[in-house]
Amino acid sequence: MSRRLILSAAPAILTGAPRTWSEVEKLLASGNVKGKLAKADLPTPALIVDLDMLESNLTKMASYLKAQGRAFRPHAKSHKCAEIAHRCLKAGAVGACAAKIGEAEVLSDKGVGGLLLTTAMVGKHRIERAVRLASKRPDTIFSVDNVQNASDLNDAARVAGKKLRVAVDLNVSNRTGITPGEPAVGLVEQMTKLSNLQFAGIQSYAGFAAHIHGFEARKKGSEEAMGRAVETRRMLEKKGIACNWLSGGSTGTYNIDSHIDGVTEIQPGSFLFMDIEYNRIGGKDTGEVYKDFQNSLKVLATVYSKPTDEFVIIDAGLKAFATDKPFAPEARDLPGVKYGYAGDEHGKLDLRSATKAVNLGDRVELVVPHCDPNVNLYDKMIAVRGEQVEAIWTIDARGKLQ
Amino acid sequence: MSRRLILSAAPAILTGAPRTWSEVEKLLASGNVKGKLAKADLPTPALIVDLDMLESNLTKMASYLKAQGRAFRPHAKSHKCAEIAHRCLKAGAVGACAAKIGEAEVLSDKGVGGLLLTTAMVGKHRIERAVRLASKRPDTIFSVDNVQNASDLNDAARVAGKKLRVAVDLNVSNRTGITPGEPAVGLVEQMTKLSNLQFAGIQSYAGFAAHIHGFEARKKGSEEAMGRAVETRRMLEKKGIACNWLSGGSTGTYNIDSHIDGVTEIQPGSFLFMDIEYNRIGGKDTGEVYKDFQNSLKVLATVYSKPTDEFVIIDAGLKAFATDKPFAPEARDLPGVKYGYAGDEHGKLDLRSATKAVNLGDRVELVVPHCDPNVNLYDKMIAVRGEQVEAIWTIDARGKLQ
Repeated sequence: MSRRLILSAAPAILTGAPRTWSEVEKLLASGNVKGKLAKADLPTPALIVDLDMLESNLTKMASYLKAQGRAFRPHAKSHKCAEIAHRCLKAGAVGACAAKIGEAEVLSDKGVGGLLLTTAMVGKHRIERAVRLASKRPDTIFSVDNVQNASDLNDAARVAGKKLRVAVDLNVSNRTGITPGEPAVGLVEQMTKLSNLQFAGIQSYAGFAAHIHGFEARKKGSEEAMGRAVETRRMLEKKGIACNWLSGGSTGTYNIDSHIDGVTEIQPGSFLFMDIEYNRIGGKDTGEVYKDFQNSLKVLATVYSKPTDEFVIIDAGLKAFATDKPFAPEARDLPGVKYGYAGDEHGKLDLRSATKAVNLGDRVELVVPHCDPNVNLYDKMIAVRGEQVEAIWTIDARGKLQ
Repeated sequence: MSRRLILSAAPAILTGAPRTWSEVEKLLASGNVKGKLAKADLPTPALIVDLDMLESNLTKMASYLKAQGRAFRPHAKSHKCAEIAHRCLKAGAVGACAAKIGEAEVLSDKGVGGLLLTTAMVGKHRIERAVRLASKRPDTIFSVDNVQNASDLNDAARVAGKKLRVAVDLNVSNRTGITPGEPAVGLVEQMTKLSNLQFAGIQSYAGFAAHIHGFEARKKGSEEAMGRAVETRRMLEKKGIACNWLSGGSTGTYNIDSHIDGVTEIQPGSFLFMDIEYNRIGGKDTGEVYKDFQNSLKVLATVYSKPTDEFVIIDAGLKAFATDKPFAPEARDLPGVKYGYAGDEHGKLDLRSATKAVNLGDRVELVVPHCDPNVNLYDKMIAVRGEQVEAIWTIDARGKLQ
């Protein structure tokens, strides 16, 4: 029987069987990998996402928010991947958030609409890009937090003969945005006078609240912050300014903010993947470990040096992980084994408390400390189901920082 | 006079003048920017490299090592950029080091030879890639640190009808490599029996020594580590095994290791760019601050929110910087201003001790904590001379982690 016949007759057995690099390279380049490629075939380090877990996370979030009667606009800054944005839309999302105009442009080009830019477009060129995007996708909403920027956006929109949908960005987290209450109301009043802007509502992201440890403390923090946004909405409505849209919330507060009267939309991102930081914030009913969503995202690495019996070196170091958190990646399938960064290209697995042997050539999966910047390090995300590779997704907006 | 005439007549005056995003976008895409684009035109965050400083750093390192009679093989894991590798070759480098086979493949495709792989090629596929690379570039040297890997490489080379040049990688830094002395000699003896391997010499990188604080302590640490490599070389030669090549060293130890008898080649990387970490190791004659090389590499960012007078938010956060060091990027042109990470996309400039005003739309240049992984976050490096953009270099091996 020819090799081709064997392959088509029994892919489930043969995938992951020894094959040449040239064959693997061609499969990876073609993207047509389903039933043909196993995790064991992948070059490492690789960013892998467990499809069963990803799908479960997406279904859970979408159905929870639907049950609460809130719109669902997941933040694409987490995944930067058009395929995932489309899966979210299919699950009921009203669109996607983007942190930067470059992300939004890529998503738009890949057919994703309902875009919300969560940060102000400041600078002549960014404003030109915003107007261009709005011309292609009139439903895009842009965030504004000062009157000069509102005026600049209005001028550019007028020249282009367009009307831009704008939200007021509230500073509820000591980051971007205008102070809620009177200052925000004053800005909106100015905005509503500008004929080429159409006021859409309130953007209010309480970043600090997302990671408050312990559900009750997190609830208190988020309710206080989002409460200021809701109050601003009421003040606007009292003045006769329609404001029927208020977007905010995160993976850490989806089950808090979606219970606050006046919040109409939740914009979570990390729930798709999860990470060590989110695992540590504590759950509503699960104590110290936040388990509402599964850790679908991992870095797959290979042991490539074993200088002593006490440690091995793997091929994933500072360039393979986002390192902004004060804790290391976790090899959860290897109890007792601790990962440590060992340079730009290397990681060290401390084996002194290991419960099983780890040898040259072995594969290791590591849960990442912080998913968003970790995804941004890779060109592709490898979608796996069990031991099989099902798809290779381009991280379309990777590096789109501008 | 038409716009075109003005542009060609007086580019130095007009660059940086207001122009449309579409014009800038076309210039950036064409890459043909000399005399046509200013720093002020660049979308941010952007990775910029000051050409005067880069050229000065390269000339200084190349001439220093030449004067010491040592070969110069800069590590491409720092710059990942074929243009820079070629500039190094022009300055006298014998080739380029690569940390990963993916980096080496890209450099080879872009015409860079004299490659040294500084980490072992473990795994069937990596070995196939190594053999393929050696077929194209027979002068490539591969590092080996265990006998099984030597045997695997030999088998693959034999099948391909090739002979691979191999170095023994010594563990002088508690990372990859085999223990210097008897164990290393034993491995080399095995390697020399394998007919499709050709023993090239010793790879010995003392990573820990590069960043020892204070020149005298660094000298002691590096001499001790590299001394073990030199001793291994002597042991090999005593056994009649020719070993006339010993490569190691770093930006922190170039003026130490190049004075050690028996070390034939230095493989520095960061000297081209420098970073805050290297600034802090202390210099031979300059006390606390290491000033042998200039800080050519910066991230250019824009202020895009000013919620209060106490701080502004810029468009460069956790995704714009490598964050593995315990210190933040530095805005050295803004005395008294402190940068802090403020999320994936945002950075916060604390203005409470600022000596001049910082306003919406202002540009800021930040020296990065750690250059190598920072370069890996960007697709392009913008080469500037003064306020003018001279070239746009593709970071060819960005993301080539495998």
